[in-house]
Amino acid sequence: MENAFEINENLRQQLQFILEIDKEKNILRQTHLSGHGRRENDSEHAWHMAIMAYLLKEYSNEPVDITKVMLMCLIHDIVEIDAGDTYAYDTEALKTQKAREDAAKERIFSLLPATQKEELISLFDEFEEAKTAEAKFAHAMDNLQPLLLNNSNGGADWREHKVHADQVYGRQVKTRQGSERLYEVTDQILKDNIHKGNIIE
Amino acid sequence: MENAFEINENLRQQLQFILEIDKEKNILRQTHLSGHGRRENDSEHAWHMAIMAYLLKEYSNEPVDITKVMLMCLIHDIVEIDAGDTYAYDTEALKTQKAREDAAKERIFSLLPATQKEELISLFDEFEEAKTAEAKFAHAMDNLQPLLLNNSNGGADWREHKVHADQVYGRQVKTRQGSERLYEVTDQILKDNIHKGNIIE
Repeated sequence: MENAFEINENLRQQLQFILEIDKEKNILRQTHLSGHGRRENDSEHAWHMAIMAYLLKEYSNEPVDITKVMLMCLIHDIVEIDAGDTYAYDTEALKTQKAREDAAKERIFSLLPATQKEELISLFDEFEEAKTAEAKFAHAMDNLQPLLLNNSNGGADWREHKVHADQVYGRQVKTRQGSERLYEVTDQILKDNIHKGNIIE
Repeated sequence: MENAFEINENLRQQLQFILEIDKEKNILRQTHLSGHGRRENDSEHAWHMAIMAYLLKEYSNEPVDITKVMLMCLIHDIVEIDAGDTYAYDTEALKTQKAREDAAKERIFSLLPATQKEELISLFDEFEEAKTAEAKFAHAMDNLQPLLLNNSNGGADWREHKVHADQVYGRQVKTRQGSERLYEVTDQILKDNIHKGNIIE
């Protein structure tokens, strides 16, 4: 009887978490969809990253557990349901980002059964620390995905936010840690956009 | 030199495919987001399904390769970029669905290097055939995800489309093949919505 109750309670918690993360679809990013579309949301970004990770895994600097990379991609923005999206070049918002995201992490992952809560928090923290091969490659996806969209839109997001080359290159350090090959592509795209005046030199 | 060229060409194809599937974010489904939100799109649905599959894998009737299930969830609707979303209870559209999706499958996956094209088409076909443990469990996610959202919105999507119980239960056969346990939950939710008059008996 106790076992039957526990199984039901676990599933109830899992379904509650699953419904809660539906809210990630309402968290808008600064990136616009290709074809000069509307702004992208976090869940779309995560979906795109997970597929990219699988397709581009051969370019990781180190061998990776691709399931782990895909999971990191899928869950890395869940905290933004409470904490909101922090634009990569918003210096003020970046100062409070960690505290806001820590509180969100505790609240949202606590909806899950304890074992899965621990597992997902551990994955989230590993991504944030960006030290393992999997986390580095997931970060390369996190950077490359909006870069490809923005480039396809003629660099409109960089122009709109008057982004400087040193800001973009600063962020791309993580791409290089994950994949030298994809950093080469990134570098080509950035140079081209600097040349065109979309990114301020 | 030939190798170097091939690597570049492969990556160029992969990036082209990655940009192409961005369009999936514009394919709207009939399901509405929780909180009586806007209509959901295919990429959001796929993201949600992939996370669900990972969290609920213990309820699969048979052991599954969870990476394969997650990949199926992530890519199963890519063909809808060309073929559009076919509503589960639209009898006319269902007649032409296979032909439309086959043409789309060939065009879109052909953007990838040959090996990855074959791999993704094979995954897509395996999902469609719904015979393996992985495909059955992925289908359970494909059914459960909109059911949870719709139920959270008081069954508004069922009411809007005047859906009958036999239609919904017909579709849920696949959920049962993937997971008896999740079928029990589905059955509870459906009975409750029939009782409330959201689904026509």
